[in-house]
Amino acid sequence: MSAGRIEPRTLKGFRDTMPAEAAARARMLRTIAATFESFGYGPIDTPALEHAEILRGKGGTESDKQMFEFDDAGGRRVALRFDLTVPLARFVAEHQNELAFPFRRWHAGMVWRGERPQKGRFREFQQCDADLVGAVGPAADAEILAMFSAVYAALGVEGYEIRVSDRRVLNGLLESLGAAERAVPVLRALDKWDKTSPDAVKAEILASGASDAVAEGVLAFARSAGASNDETLARMDALVGANARGKEGVAGMREALRLAAAGGAPASRFRVDPTIARGLDYYTGIVFEAGLPAVEGFGSIGSGGRYDDLAGLYTNTKLPGVGCSVGLTRLLVLLEEQGKLAGTRTTAALVTHPESGDPAPAFALAAAVRRDGFAVETYPEARKHAAQMKFADRKGLRFVLTLDPSGSVHAKDLASGDVFDASPASIAAELRRRAAAG
Amino acid sequence: MSAGRIEPRTLKGFRDTMPAEAAARARMLRTIAATFESFGYGPIDTPALEHAEILRGKGGTESDKQMFEFDDAGGRRVALRFDLTVPLARFVAEHQNELAFPFRRWHAGMVWRGERPQKGRFREFQQCDADLVGAVGPAADAEILAMFSAVYAALGVEGYEIRVSDRRVLNGLLESLGAAERAVPVLRALDKWDKTSPDAVKAEILASGASDAVAEGVLAFARSAGASNDETLARMDALVGANARGKEGVAGMREALRLAAAGGAPASRFRVDPTIARGLDYYTGIVFEAGLPAVEGFGSIGSGGRYDDLAGLYTNTKLPGVGCSVGLTRLLVLLEEQGKLAGTRTTAALVTHPESGDPAPAFALAAAVRRDGFAVETYPEARKHAAQMKFADRKGLRFVLTLDPSGSVHAKDLASGDVFDASPASIAAELRRRAAAG
Repeated sequence: MSAGRIEPRTLKGFRDTMPAEAAARARMLRTIAATFESFGYGPIDTPALEHAEILRGKGGTESDKQMFEFDDAGGRRVALRFDLTVPLARFVAEHQNELAFPFRRWHAGMVWRGERPQKGRFREFQQCDADLVGAVGPAADAEILAMFSAVYAALGVEGYEIRVSDRRVLNGLLESLGAAERAVPVLRALDKWDKTSPDAVKAEILASGASDAVAEGVLAFARSAGASNDETLARMDALVGANARGKEGVAGMREALRLAAAGGAPASRFRVDPTIARGLDYYTGIVFEAGLPAVEGFGSIGSGGRYDDLAGLYTNTKLPGVGCSVGLTRLLVLLEEQGKLAGTRTTAALVTHPESGDPAPAFALAAAVRRDGFAVETYPEARKHAAQMKFADRKGLRFVLTLDPSGSVHAKDLASGDVFDASPASIAAELRRRAAAG
Repeated sequence: MSAGRIEPRTLKGFRDTMPAEAAARARMLRTIAATFESFGYGPIDTPALEHAEILRGKGGTESDKQMFEFDDAGGRRVALRFDLTVPLARFVAEHQNELAFPFRRWHAGMVWRGERPQKGRFREFQQCDADLVGAVGPAADAEILAMFSAVYAALGVEGYEIRVSDRRVLNGLLESLGAAERAVPVLRALDKWDKTSPDAVKAEILASGASDAVAEGVLAFARSAGASNDETLARMDALVGANARGKEGVAGMREALRLAAAGGAPASRFRVDPTIARGLDYYTGIVFEAGLPAVEGFGSIGSGGRYDDLAGLYTNTKLPGVGCSVGLTRLLVLLEEQGKLAGTRTTAALVTHPESGDPAPAFALAAAVRRDGFAVETYPEARKHAAQMKFADRKGLRFVLTLDPSGSVHAKDLASGDVFDASPASIAAELRRRAAAG
């Protein structure tokens, strides 16, 4: 690198999105948005930067440490949002008089967290959330569950499963064990059930100061999954004993699953799983997580849950809600691992630039084929024909069209290697025929 | 506000995007993206944060002062991108071995500038750019001009006009006047032609140290617009005299406009205008700006131009390019001023929640109507029917559907006030009939 040059590089933990991935992401976002909107959810956006005091202390101390926070030129303490939920809380508190409640919104946007970079984890990533704010009860929970499963169905994600539990049940169990104050460490320990062992979870619960009886009670609960959702719910109901909160949680889950199925959600995709806890402190009711049980170690592809008081830090108005977040970045990794992102030859065409002479007729040909619905690019300079062919091949274009001075079109199908001639009037129909044939 | 509450507010110069505007923006972006992609442009994304040294000094001292720049937790000097062009330069330099040149990309993303907030100007706004990198000559310029006009046509923007000039012509004129070194202040002065007066422009040129003869030469140039593009080009050609660079600029513009028209761009939308300068230092050839001449004082709705050496700060490879930027935020302001954003009643429907009894059949009805292509929401709680109707009206939904215990659907069209009954099997067809009738 010569003197004075600056090395072109992205920040550690950040990355560029190349065209194939960006196009796949845009397609996925369109599908997700269309699903959310079919349920009456409208899009919003909020600023990337907020007053730091708005964001601080909302996602736990871990989030605080990971925030990109600084003083702006006007001396204000500002920070980049680390999720879309805290900005939603600020948004509904600020605009509550302009909004119709129950308020349904979806929001796709970048968030930033200064995590230690590791494989598949970045400091900038996109979240895609939908929330229903200002409603309580199983019908609201059911709507989110039905919509959440509709997203994966619309995306064509094979083998997805949504595991469901409810914070009220675990809290009720702890109350019945006389250990209500242990909820946070127990939740955090239980959240690691998939990744560690029952012994490790028990050790972590004991380390938080809980008795052996409490730890054993939680382990019995975590192992209460039965052969069917009805069986699991019955066992959970038995374990919480007479505790009203626990019973309400079991009944709420049962009703939410029933209504989601009534609304067309495929019942077989939902599995009641007592080990689902979700680490975040703000959930208070139903919690759920989508995954791919057949793909070893792939982890979560989305999650969500109910919170009682979203905006309590900003307003006296009680705004309960329930929401879901689709793991767009994880789904893109899945597509990439499955080889579904790269190497797909499009049905796009290149119109070559004449090696000499007037390029205007080639421009007119390109415009005509483009009007017929094809993506068409013209080579922008007079280069050797072979160089233009090489470009088309490298970019993965399907067809190369060269206008002959006589007025006919010499075409090459780069997928099959076929060469053929056509008139400018018939070329689009011929391309369409070949594209349809695969 | 009670003690301990945090006031819910956005930062000065930042704002939330409400559902109607966010939906309009998403629709516009889809149309713009489809147009770009029909010309062979693929999407990319780059991080919001870059090493500050990458961004610094690329857009002039004004951009440097306006950058949101800070030290991250790892002690790196970082900054939020202030445009999408400098990140593109870094991107093509970093990935040049992976890309097929000529490289066509589009990029829609937020940018941040700490400008003094004023009406219609924000510190966070969305840019939407397309660039063709690695090609020189009028065919490349023509492609961008044709695509740029195709975007406004696809968006249905009435009365748009694209004013075109070329930096080589003005630079050639200054060379022929013996004042080549005055290019930057003269460009900046000329850029204000629309907003001030010829006297003010002349005064600014004189203030930069140029002679009266140079200032008068520039003014004569600025006034050289004729009754047609051909006449203006002929006058510009005469004014640059024998200067080769100036002549090349005139010929380049003439050829780019001819090829754009051959590619289907409406020639009447392009006007050669010697006063178009574009303030940015990096343009070296054709420059253009889209506006709405019939809307007094509305200003630019997009712009672009050619640059000789995009990535020279990062690589020895010479990467010339030409690009355009669509003024999405300005276009949204236009739609809002024209009342095209708010108050549009959708064709969405609400299925009410029964005041008592099982809501499952209502969920099933909602799912069925949704499968028929309507956006359908269910009221998520058992509330009084009147409250649910009020919600539907406030949200601007078109239809309210209530399932009778007998199994028939009582429907209300909130646009007309009509009430009617239908069976669950026939309701979607009836809604479609009414939606089509307006």
